[in-house]
Amino acid sequence: MKIGFIGLGHMGSAMAANLVRAGHEVTVFNRSADKRRPLVELGATEAATIADACKGDVVFTMLADDAALRQVALGDSCVVGKLRRGCIHVSMSTVSVELVRELAWAHAEAGQKFVAAPVFGRPEMAATAKLFVIAAGDPDAIKVCTPLFDAMGQKTFELGNDPAAASLVKLSGNFMIAAAIETLGEALALVGKAGIDPTTFVNVLTSTLFPVPAYRTYGTLIAEGRFQPAGFAAPLGHKDVRLLLSASQSLRVPMPIASLLNDRFVRLLAHGEEQLDWSAIGRLAAEDAGLTRAGRS
Amino acid sequence: MKIGFIGLGHMGSAMAANLVRAGHEVTVFNRSADKRRPLVELGATEAATIADACKGDVVFTMLADDAALRQVALGDSCVVGKLRRGCIHVSMSTVSVELVRELAWAHAEAGQKFVAAPVFGRPEMAATAKLFVIAAGDPDAIKVCTPLFDAMGQKTFELGNDPAAASLVKLSGNFMIAAAIETLGEALALVGKAGIDPTTFVNVLTSTLFPVPAYRTYGTLIAEGRFQPAGFAAPLGHKDVRLLLSASQSLRVPMPIASLLNDRFVRLLAHGEEQLDWSAIGRLAAEDAGLTRAGRS
Amino acid sequence: MKIGFIGLGHMGSAMAANLVRAGHEVTVFNRSADKRRPLVELGATEAATIADACKGDVVFTMLADDAALRQVALGDSCVVGKLRRGCIHVSMSTVSVELVRELAWAHAEAGQKFVAAPVFGRPEMAATAKLFVIAAGDPDAIKVCTPLFDAMGQKTFELGNDPAAASLVKLSGNFMIAAAIETLGEALALVGKAGIDPTTFVNVLTSTLFPVPAYRTYGTLIAEGRFQPAGFAAPLGHKDVRLLLSASQSLRVPMPIASLLNDRFVRLLAHGEEQLDWSAIGRLAAEDAGLTRAGRS
Amino acid sequence: MKIGFIGLGHMGSAMAANLVRAGHEVTVFNRSADKRRPLVELGATEAATIADACKGDVVFTMLADDAALRQVALGDSCVVGKLRRGCIHVSMSTVSVELVRELAWAHAEAGQKFVAAPVFGRPEMAATAKLFVIAAGDPDAIKVCTPLFDAMGQKTFELGNDPAAASLVKLSGNFMIAAAIETLGEALALVGKAGIDPTTFVNVLTSTLFPVPAYRTYGTLIAEGRFQPAGFAAPLGHKDVRLLLSASQSLRVPMPIASLLNDRFVRLLAHGEEQLDWSAIGRLAAEDAGLTRAGRS
Repeated sequence: MKIGFIGLGHMGSAMAANLVRAGHEVTVFNRSADKRRPLVELGATEAATIADACKGDVVFTMLADDAALRQVALGDSCVVGKLRRGCIHVSMSTVSVELVRELAWAHAEAGQKFVAAPVFGRPEMAATAKLFVIAAGDPDAIKVCTPLFDAMGQKTFELGNDPAAASLVKLSGNFMIAAAIETLGEALALVGKAGIDPTTFVNVLTSTLFPVPAYRTYGTLIAEGRFQPAGFAAPLGHKDVRLLLSASQSLRVPMPIASLLNDRFVRLLAHGEEQLDWSAIGRLAAEDAGLTRAGRS
Repeated sequence: MKIGFIGLGHMGSAMAANLVRAGHEVTVFNRSADKRRPLVELGATEAATIADACKGDVVFTMLADDAALRQVALGDSCVVGKLRRGCIHVSMSTVSVELVRELAWAHAEAGQKFVAAPVFGRPEMAATAKLFVIAAGDPDAIKVCTPLFDAMGQKTFELGNDPAAASLVKLSGNFMIAAAIETLGEALALVGKAGIDPTTFVNVLTSTLFPVPAYRTYGTLIAEGRFQPAGFAAPLGHKDVRLLLSASQSLRVPMPIASLLNDRFVRLLAHGEEQLDWSAIGRLAAEDAGLTRAGRS
Repeated sequence: MKIGFIGLGHMGSAMAANLVRAGHEVTVFNRSADKRRPLVELGATEAATIADACKGDVVFTMLADDAALRQVALGDSCVVGKLRRGCIHVSMSTVSVELVRELAWAHAEAGQKFVAAPVFGRPEMAATAKLFVIAAGDPDAIKVCTPLFDAMGQKTFELGNDPAAASLVKLSGNFMIAAAIETLGEALALVGKAGIDPTTFVNVLTSTLFPVPAYRTYGTLIAEGRFQPAGFAAPLGHKDVRLLLSASQSLRVPMPIASLLNDRFVRLLAHGEEQLDWSAIGRLAAEDAGLTRAGRS
Repeated sequence: MKIGFIGLGHMGSAMAANLVRAGHEVTVFNRSADKRRPLVELGATEAATIADACKGDVVFTMLADDAALRQVALGDSCVVGKLRRGCIHVSMSTVSVELVRELAWAHAEAGQKFVAAPVFGRPEMAATAKLFVIAAGDPDAIKVCTPLFDAMGQKTFELGNDPAAASLVKLSGNFMIAAAIETLGEALALVGKAGIDPTTFVNVLTSTLFPVPAYRTYGTLIAEGRFQPAGFAAPLGHKDVRLLLSASQSLRVPMPIASLLNDRFVRLLAHGEEQLDWSAIGRLAAEDAGLTRAGRS
């Protein structure tokens, strides 16, 4: 299939590469041109403008946040302005429910199709095509995209016609990971202050009740106080919690744990620690308990 | 080995049965005699008194709470008073750190050995000898008990000399499950109010980020509003959160999520719902969001 | 002095009336014309457009929220577009710190002066010129306005050059009242469930520790479950808490009580109770405690 | 009247002195004898034992906590064992609802009368007989004590027959002060980080919305970061919050602000700051906001 792919960060590069490997004609665009090269070497075509990336049947966007997606998607020289009628825009970024609604509306106005398809998985899962794709939007468009999703992920979940649903499920998933991080942080502070080895504790937990990567990965990072380099930086984690809270306000759903997580991120960032992994909120309980700050010089 | 087993509830019965099946000479005691019969049929000996159950090398206790264990273990006609010098008391109940310390001290005074060995796992895991055993205490005593633990569980984790450590890890594990329940409840309220099918959401989560029984079981119960019959009743869940908070106070470790969970349980029980499963705290977020109460007539 | 006054709600009408009574030439504007009449009868001039109200030395705005003030103040046919160079806009509404900054900037660009002067006090205090004025902005402009503030309030506090400071102090004051409401609600739930008469309790508190109108007024409303008619409606209370949280996010100051209050308002409004007084959040603790809902049929 | 007075700390000494000055025959007891001397000089009689202080018609106790009161009141050589039938024990300490119930029961068994009469007010109010007395218990006994209360306080509030009510109201009052401290702390962190002078802010608040000593005193201490010497030490504040939470658990009333305050005190004390005034929890928000720790070298 003829495809465009816009946004070549850690995730996007790996995803676009898998599309190329699967035999599709992929035209890639990224604001900083150096990110495009490895993909061109792999067989992708380089786009000089957003418009160039919008000439195929489907264009994917994988961008950092609302502002970036808005800049790329909305406007005359952007995806909405350049994509042909009947063609498909698949937004795979983690963005606000509001922006997803706005895009859905803009594409409908322009006679185009829109699918929101955010993913669960970290860069190494993107590299090995093991992502989970959460797709919602026009059912025909999703059908067209299914082989493309299969090239990037291990499984696709369809959540119906409303693209906003995919966005909300993705944000909820990240909220749940953040809640697990905070919970691990509190439990580790407790057992740590009692003199139990944190690594042993994480091992017990993840061999019994919680044998999943989220608990294992973040439990280990907190136990070892190892928050750099960031796999997923604290400001991004905070952004996702804020997008979730914003959606919960609109829907009028009080979420006390989300509020607590937000306060944790605000506190972390108040100390200027933007460079840390988001799991660094998991050490605040230990600080409050008077334990020496782990992971600090 | 010659063994006593005191406390034949859902968990204890299954555990004692596995000890009998493993070829040990097991003498069982339970306050209400009818619980002893099935074990006697399986080959166990019936004890008429606590003292009768304390004649072997090891005596296990598996009781509902601090009060029950205190009544059985402390005092002249109880385990501490009747067990022979050098013999071992293995406490497998989920009880307070304070009581564990008190028992450790009392057994040391009496020249006996004490091991705290609470377990992770629900009754069906006890029945199939799939429990996880968290053991701490006298290392020689743990060595003696290892084949016995193997008869009851799939794996034993040793946490060192201090029995209190096992208690704290067990309470922390239950805290983490309760936190996952509350988190699920909040996320389900959010997506539910947005019109996303709760069962689909739980399926997505437990096929991707959280493919573990705790999330699957409790996610399903909350999604379906099915809190009866209780697998683990709300008052027991509350008890464990309170024991955790009590330990966190003594150690001076602030645990805001534990505080929040405590408030949730107090609220649930304030409405007289002792008979519900502890996962019923997971529907409070939906109530706060103005959704119809699930699981109610 | 020649003055314009835009926004004739409960508060604005009373404040404008006091300016008229103090002998100033006041031109009033309100979107719905019927609100202007009583003031015209008192001696004010009626403005047909915003522009008409901007012909004096000072124009006051007293509007419900950011949206209303934005509509009135920003734009060509609005205050910023119509006020003469060197003249003063005094914003007395409770609005976001962001909007205050935006207005300060726009007026500076247009060669006008800007003062933020929100007030503490309910309509009856406005009527009797007993408001407290919290003023910040251009010092010369504040000096010019001082006699005008004196005509409307009992005391003016000057908070320096930055208009945003006045906004933040006003929002903080409202936050503190909301916190007192929640605190009263929790305490009343406790003593109420213990069988102590709520009115007696409020009387004890406000005769001893808290002899101030905020505790007396809201304590009484909660004790009596009397939340209608609303003196200050729940959605307005929620708006102010959200503006405060928004400011606290920008400044990176975690405020757990503010987060909790936000959750309370979201919960109240999730049940569709926009018509209640904001102190109705003070009955949620009693609901959680299983007490019969007060103030409901 | 012939009176005994047990417990001569800051509060008790001042209260006993006022009883002497009012012309009563007061026999005083304190564990450390040096505290008795100033009262003896004033005209009181010194008791060598608790029993000696129990020979009058009424005996007052004013002690630090449950443990101290329990030691003085319960047991054969204590108040319950020594007070004559028909005589009155007035407990003015801030203690748990449980202990008050236990004392009420013990005195009833012994044919004595019991009144719980905790007070609001700091030592300087005790010295000037400006305390507020919250009394509950046997109505006849309260009538007998009224002139005695009048000698110590400016006003007495009667809360009915159940002594536990007085205890609960006293604990609720302290909870509300602690909540005001936390609220002040959060607001001061916010305005402080925005560059507004904290002292000005406290002045504005206590000149407008909250013109009461609690806000003025604690607002000033937090604004100035002056937490030593402690007027009311953090461990005592924590004790009172825990007693309140314990009562709220028994009554099944979730109190989220009380939970939050408890976490704050645990955190403060985790850093070993027992010597600070309880208002030091009000600086934690500033710490979380990344402001320099006030009141620290």
